[in-house]
Amino acid sequence: MNISSRRGFIKTAAAASFVAASGAGARTAAAEEKTTTGPAFDHLHSPAPLPFDAKNLRGLSEKLIQSHWENNYGGAIKALNALRGRLVQALNDPTSPPYVYTGLKREQLLRTGSVVLHEAYFGNLGGSGKPDADVRTRIAGSFGTFDAWESEFRKIGQGLGGGSGWAVLGFNRRLKVLENYWMADHATGPIDTTPVLVMDMYEHAYAMDYGAAAAKYIDAYFANINWELVASRL
Amino acid sequence: MNISSRRGFIKTAAAASFVAASGAGARTAAAEEKTTTGPAFDHLHSPAPLPFDAKNLRGLSEKLIQSHWENNYGGAIKALNALRGRLVQALNDPTSPPYVYTGLKREQLLRTGSVVLHEAYFGNLGGSGKPDADVRTRIAGSFGTFDAWESEFRKIGQGLGGGSGWAVLGFNRRLKVLENYWMADHATGPIDTTPVLVMDMYEHAYAMDYGAAAAKYIDAYFANINWELVASRL
Amino acid sequence: MNISSRRGFIKTAAAASFVAASGAGARTAAAEEKTTTGPAFDHLHSPAPLPFDAKNLRGLSEKLIQSHWENNYGGAIKALNALRGRLVQALNDPTSPPYVYTGLKREQLLRTGSVVLHEAYFGNLGGSGKPDADVRTRIAGSFGTFDAWESEFRKIGQGLGGGSGWAVLGFNRRLKVLENYWMADHATGPIDTTPVLVMDMYEHAYAMDYGAAAAKYIDAYFANINWELVASRL
Amino acid sequence: MNISSRRGFIKTAAAASFVAASGAGARTAAAEEKTTTGPAFDHLHSPAPLPFDAKNLRGLSEKLIQSHWENNYGGAIKALNALRGRLVQALNDPTSPPYVYTGLKREQLLRTGSVVLHEAYFGNLGGSGKPDADVRTRIAGSFGTFDAWESEFRKIGQGLGGGSGWAVLGFNRRLKVLENYWMADHATGPIDTTPVLVMDMYEHAYAMDYGAAAAKYIDAYFANINWELVASRL
Repeated sequence: MNISSRRGFIKTAAAASFVAASGAGARTAAAEEKTTTGPAFDHLHSPAPLPFDAKNLRGLSEKLIQSHWENNYGGAIKALNALRGRLVQALNDPTSPPYVYTGLKREQLLRTGSVVLHEAYFGNLGGSGKPDADVRTRIAGSFGTFDAWESEFRKIGQGLGGGSGWAVLGFNRRLKVLENYWMADHATGPIDTTPVLVMDMYEHAYAMDYGAAAAKYIDAYFANINWELVASRL
Repeated sequence: MNISSRRGFIKTAAAASFVAASGAGARTAAAEEKTTTGPAFDHLHSPAPLPFDAKNLRGLSEKLIQSHWENNYGGAIKALNALRGRLVQALNDPTSPPYVYTGLKREQLLRTGSVVLHEAYFGNLGGSGKPDADVRTRIAGSFGTFDAWESEFRKIGQGLGGGSGWAVLGFNRRLKVLENYWMADHATGPIDTTPVLVMDMYEHAYAMDYGAAAAKYIDAYFANINWELVASRL
Repeated sequence: MNISSRRGFIKTAAAASFVAASGAGARTAAAEEKTTTGPAFDHLHSPAPLPFDAKNLRGLSEKLIQSHWENNYGGAIKALNALRGRLVQALNDPTSPPYVYTGLKREQLLRTGSVVLHEAYFGNLGGSGKPDADVRTRIAGSFGTFDAWESEFRKIGQGLGGGSGWAVLGFNRRLKVLENYWMADHATGPIDTTPVLVMDMYEHAYAMDYGAAAAKYIDAYFANINWELVASRL
Repeated sequence: MNISSRRGFIKTAAAASFVAASGAGARTAAAEEKTTTGPAFDHLHSPAPLPFDAKNLRGLSEKLIQSHWENNYGGAIKALNALRGRLVQALNDPTSPPYVYTGLKREQLLRTGSVVLHEAYFGNLGGSGKPDADVRTRIAGSFGTFDAWESEFRKIGQGLGGGSGWAVLGFNRRLKVLENYWMADHATGPIDTTPVLVMDMYEHAYAMDYGAAAAKYIDAYFANINWELVASRL
């Protein structure tokens, strides 16, 4: 099996298991549960394929990217799909107290963030790493200069090195400001904000290739940014 | 000074102090700082007035609402405005390490969440508390029934009673699902999500009126929801 | 029923309900569960009575203290007792994935922190608020001066105003340093650390009496510190 | 330079840089700062050497352990040492608001947790992985059986796979219970608790050797537990 067909296989198998592992099996047929249906309780998310060939990134190995996509992003989808079934169970169990429910809701939020941010992350990779004048100007409009933006974005990433979290350039729709955010984990983040450029700072994004050298990963990340895609989000 | 003019006074005074307390004074005139200008570093947020008369809510006292608007929402704006100046200072200080910067960015995220969520919260109060058939149907479309939605939303709120956090009905723009979120504090939350109905579960939202009786506050909250406004966000 | 006997009644009733609400009912009689017994899974915590008369504090009302003890501290005990039963259930359910389990463990940690910190908090109130020379000297030994300690401790408290969290003077047994800690919520905190002086900054500690005026609460807190008790913890 | 002498070199160099990087340089000589001295503000932590030879662990490579000790544990010490200087600066700056201070205190707590937990972690590795009958009995006394304890401890670890956090067997000195804790990051955790067995679930603890296969790391971790040391903590 060559790499391409292997990847195809993995994706198909993964998609199947995403559904198989979903909450369906966790649900009982209690009549009252009929009222808790609809996307909020039974949405099953399917993995979005990588928008680039994993063996073509600069300084980020195929093995790293493939594991990241399959295990971390894929694992979050499986967990999120399964959690909806658990939520229905807990909501329909009159003996289940609110603080058990919030435990599940935290896990749901964590996986929701992981899915959404990973899709935005892979979505903005695979490019030349070279922003054109237009996107530079638009970012400079909010940060003074493009370099000032890059300086802050990298500093956030460095501050997260050795731990977990995300650095995100986002447009806050309520404040009407394009700004950088520090996020401690998948469950942290600004609501009502469109992610424009997303950098994963969990160690699974780089440890296989760079060990603890987070700064080198940030360099590699910048070399692969798909700025055309970023521009389209602006 | 009657209550209306007092409120007007407070708002004007507050707006002035929001600017006075902003980060401006914290900045030095170092030449290099000229590169860190623009909304991301110098945006000053102004308070949005209450969209209703604070003395007209059912079961939520004017004193509570006024304090909530002025001290908690207003305090977040002051802090957020001042923090931008601190960020510029730290970014331009070559001796300042990334982990000091991320400390500031966390505080910025916390206040950003507080400002955005409080505006959405006050924005969806002041109504009749009576959802019309159309909004009930649209929510039922995602949760099975309107009651299933309300049951989960209240359960999230109850689970947060006695602590901090938010219950939010939001439309996740990436997952394309309308769902309820549990948020532990202002800095927690789903990115790329439009808040549709927001309930503050910090104790400052109810302790003055209800002490520890969070469930009674949730009832009062529901009695004041502006469902027409909520419908407009859907 | 006068206030004293009413409080006695409340405590007895509460103690009973702490046990009744415990996880016992949530457990099934599955044979395999016999292996998950012992304090880690079935410890039932009982409330410690207030070490002072709630109507005798300066600037903190009996109503506030009583509600704090009964609802917030008492509520945490009930939740903690019930959660152990849920943990046994989840651990013995082969279909329950690890991320459901960690959701419960987070809630357990949150309630564990609440119980331990509330007991330390009530435990160090009820005094004169006047530290003697010996305790001042011992604290100065770690902070330069007693005032430097107080200045930092109050600043932590002020920074938590309007939200949740704790300010704690603690002895870090590993670092062998007596220092102040900021804690965002009941689940945050330094392990291997003996709490010496604990100040609750959740809004339920003051909103009933002081609304949003956290600084006034901090003054009242200081006026009631039992420094003899604090000295005994040093 | 052979591996042993290289390690010695690294440790000596690291110790020097831990002091050099400390907050000393960040402090100004303002007279008022003389009141903020003492361990709480100027304690400099030195790294504890590994209590075993990094090349002798089973299934955990020397490269991984060395990087973990030097970069993650060592980095936390450097940051913690430097942060104390920043705290003094901020405390003595009358223009610095409390919410800037709490940002620093959070970073301090994060690094304090990292230092304490890493020392406990390395401290309980390097053994045979084989608990004797006595330690098994003592753990069984709290969990029903030793296997019930191991089952929960592993489940906590698995739930943290792909992210950050710690699984800790600890003795809660207030509750007087030996129990397992889930901790989301270095800043989470139970106060007044003695860590007995500590497992690092940050990805830097395994990604170099095992990629995303957290379960295989947990197996390797168990194979290296120094149970004699654990027994001494009980």
